[in-house]
Amino acid sequence: LNETEQGPRRVEVRSARGPYDVLVGRGLLGSAGQHITERLPDVRRWAVIADDHVAPLYGGRVRAALEERGCDASLFAFPAGEQHKTRGQWQRLTDALLAAELGRDAGVVAVGGGVTGDLAGFVAATYMRGIPVVQVATSIVAMVDSSVGGKTGVDTPAGKNLVGAFHPPGLVLIDPDVVATLPRTERAQGWAEAVKHGAILDRPYFDELAASAPELLAGDADATERAVRRSVELKARVVSDDEREGGLREVLNFGHTLGHALEAASDYTLPHGSAVSVGMVLEARLGERMGVTKSGTANHLAGALERFELPTTFSAATPSGELEGYLRRDKKVRAGRVRMVLLQCVGEVANDGHWSREVAIDSSLDVIDTYGADAGV
Amino acid sequence: LNETEQGPRRVEVRSARGPYDVLVGRGLLGSAGQHITERLPDVRRWAVIADDHVAPLYGGRVRAALEERGCDASLFAFPAGEQHKTRGQWQRLTDALLAAELGRDAGVVAVGGGVTGDLAGFVAATYMRGIPVVQVATSIVAMVDSSVGGKTGVDTPAGKNLVGAFHPPGLVLIDPDVVATLPRTERAQGWAEAVKHGAILDRPYFDELAASAPELLAGDADATERAVRRSVELKARVVSDDEREGGLREVLNFGHTLGHALEAASDYTLPHGSAVSVGMVLEARLGERMGVTKSGTANHLAGALERFELPTTFSAATPSGELEGYLRRDKKVRAGRVRMVLLQCVGEVANDGHWSREVAIDSSLDVIDTYGADAGV
Repeated sequence: LNETEQGPRRVEVRSARGPYDVLVGRGLLGSAGQHITERLPDVRRWAVIADDHVAPLYGGRVRAALEERGCDASLFAFPAGEQHKTRGQWQRLTDALLAAELGRDAGVVAVGGGVTGDLAGFVAATYMRGIPVVQVATSIVAMVDSSVGGKTGVDTPAGKNLVGAFHPPGLVLIDPDVVATLPRTERAQGWAEAVKHGAILDRPYFDELAASAPELLAGDADATERAVRRSVELKARVVSDDEREGGLREVLNFGHTLGHALEAASDYTLPHGSAVSVGMVLEARLGERMGVTKSGTANHLAGALERFELPTTFSAATPSGELEGYLRRDKKVRAGRVRMVLLQCVGEVANDGHWSREVAIDSSLDVIDTYGADAGV
Repeated sequence: LNETEQGPRRVEVRSARGPYDVLVGRGLLGSAGQHITERLPDVRRWAVIADDHVAPLYGGRVRAALEERGCDASLFAFPAGEQHKTRGQWQRLTDALLAAELGRDAGVVAVGGGVTGDLAGFVAATYMRGIPVVQVATSIVAMVDSSVGGKTGVDTPAGKNLVGAFHPPGLVLIDPDVVATLPRTERAQGWAEAVKHGAILDRPYFDELAASAPELLAGDADATERAVRRSVELKARVVSDDEREGGLREVLNFGHTLGHALEAASDYTLPHGSAVSVGMVLEARLGERMGVTKSGTANHLAGALERFELPTTFSAATPSGELEGYLRRDKKVRAGRVRMVLLQCVGEVANDGHWSREVAIDSSLDVIDTYGADAGV
C-alpha cells in the first residue's frame, strides 16, 4: 500500500494553547489553501512571509492557494540568510503588516526554512500581542526540526536566538517534493538535526539515516518523506511532553551548547548544521572523557555525520578566547558552568535525574583545544 | 479592625501559566525583597527596570531589598515618558541585560507606571523566549489596571501597543504609600481607569469613587488603598475568566477604542487617562444614539470624570481625518467596522451575546464631530 495515496501523514503535537497538526506528504503544497482554511477558518487575511529566494518558488504558490479559498493574502519578502534574522528585520516586517492594515484577525504563513520560521513566527508572536502562524517548511532543517515546537526568535550581536517567544503554530505543512530545489549542501545541513534525533532517542533511526545518506543527500523525495516523518514523530513526542523545556525537551539541545558558541564565534560563517555536527562530536568526546558517554560514541557519530558530508571538527582559525565569551553568554550558563546534554550511547541520553548536567566551561574549552581541530581542518 | 495591620491584601489571578498573587498594602515596598524571593525562589539574579524618575525614588530601594535577601540585582533605567515605550528602547534594555550576562535563570522587576510595566514586561516576555517578571506598580494607572493581566508591549508609529505579548507576571506588588510622590494630575490620569471599572462592572464602586474623588486626588493613602483593592479585585475577576480577550476581558476596552485613536491622533500629547475619559463619554454618547445605552449615561459618566478633573471632550484641533486613519488601524477593525464595548447603564455593559459589538467607523466619526468638542475646548 502506497501511503502517499492515502493522503498526508498527520502527527499531532500538544501545546499549552491546544493541539496542532503537522502534515507530511508529497504534493501537499498544492492543497495548502485547503488545509490552512479548514484548520483556521476564522482567519481570512493572511500575510505570507518568505525570503527572497523562496518567495518566487513557493511563496506565491501559497498566496495563490489561499486566494483560491477566498482569503485575502499578501506576500512579504525579506532578504535570505541567517544574517537577516534580526530585530531590525522583525521591525520592518511588522511595519509592513501594519502598513497593509492587517488587524488582530489576520494570520501569518511562514514559508521557508529555519530562519523564516523563526523570524516570521516571532513577527506573529508579537503582532498585536500574537496572531496565528502556519509553518510551511521548505528546508530539511525546518522539516525535521524547527517548524515543530513553537520556538520563534531572532539573533542579536550577543548570540543566536537570544530574543524570542514560544508561539506554537496553528498548523505545520511539510511537502517533501520541495527537496528538489534545495542545493545538496543545504540538504546536508538539515540532516544534521535528524542525525541528532537518532543519536538522542532512536538507534534504529540513526542507523537507517546513515544507510540512506546518499539518497537523502541526492534529494530523493520518498526517502526524504520517510526520514522526515520519523523525525517529526520524535520531535512531536518530545515537545508535547515538555513544551517550555523544563524537562525532556532539553535532550534536543544535544550538540547545541558548543554548536551555538562555534556558530557565533565564526560570526555565522559556519552554517548551523555544520556547527551542530561539530558540536555533537565534541560533546560526545567531552562525555567520553567524563566517563558518562560510552567509549567510541564520538567516532560512531562522526562516521554517520561524515556520510552526510558534514564537518566533525572546526577550523583552528576560530579563536578560542572568542569562543569562551560566547559560551559564557549561553542561555544555559549558571556560575561558570554550562548545562549540557550528554549521550549514554548512540540512541540514548545520559540521565542522572536530569536530562542535562552542569559542565565546567573550562573543561569544555579544554576538549575543544584538544579535539576541535584534530583533523587539521 | 485595621486591615493594614493584618498585612497586605492578597488577590489571586488565574492565568494560562498558573495563578499569581497581587498584593496591596501600605508599606509593602519595604518588604518587597521578602515577597519576591518567597514566591520566585529559583530566580537569584534580577534586572530592576525603572524610568529615570522612578529609579532614584523606588528602583534603588527594590534593588537593595533584593540584595538584602541574597540576590544579585542591577538597576536599569530608561528615559521617562510614553514616547520612550518603543521597540528601540526595548532593544536597548535587552542589550543592556545581555551585556550584564543575565541568563535564562534571571528575572525582571518592573518598578513604575504603565509605560514601565508594558516595556519591561515585553523585555521579559522576549528575553531568551521569556523570563519571569514581577510588577511593582508605582502609578495609579498601574495599581488599578495595567500591572494586572499580563499584557505587555510597545507602541509603533502606526499606533499604541501594536507590538507585544501576553506575559503574566509572577507577582504584583502595590504599595499605596507611593501616591505621596505622584503629581496630582498624574493621579487623576490613573483614576480614569478605576472609574471605567465602576462604569462597566460595579455601580456602588462608581458612586464611591465619585464621592471620594477629592481625597483620591489629594493622595490620601488609605482612600487610595481602598479603591485600588476594589479595582484589583474587579480586574482580577475579569482576566482570570478570560486571559486572552476572547470574551469577558473585552469589557475592559470600554472607552479605549475612541480613546486610543484620540491619543494617537494627538501624537500622544493627550495623556492616556484623559483620552480614555473622553473616549468613555463619546462611546456612551454613541451608545445612547444607537439606543443601546440608557439615556443620561454619558452625562452621568462625565460628571464623575469631571470630579477627577479629567476632560470629557477633546480639542477641536485634532483633525478628524487623522483620527479616522488611526481608527481604521485599530486592532479590533474588521471591514470598516470597529468592535466597541457599549454600556447598558452605569455599572453594566450591554451584551447581545457578545461583550462588544461592531460599530461603523462612519457613525463613530459622526458622533465625534457632533459631541467631541462641544464644550469648546
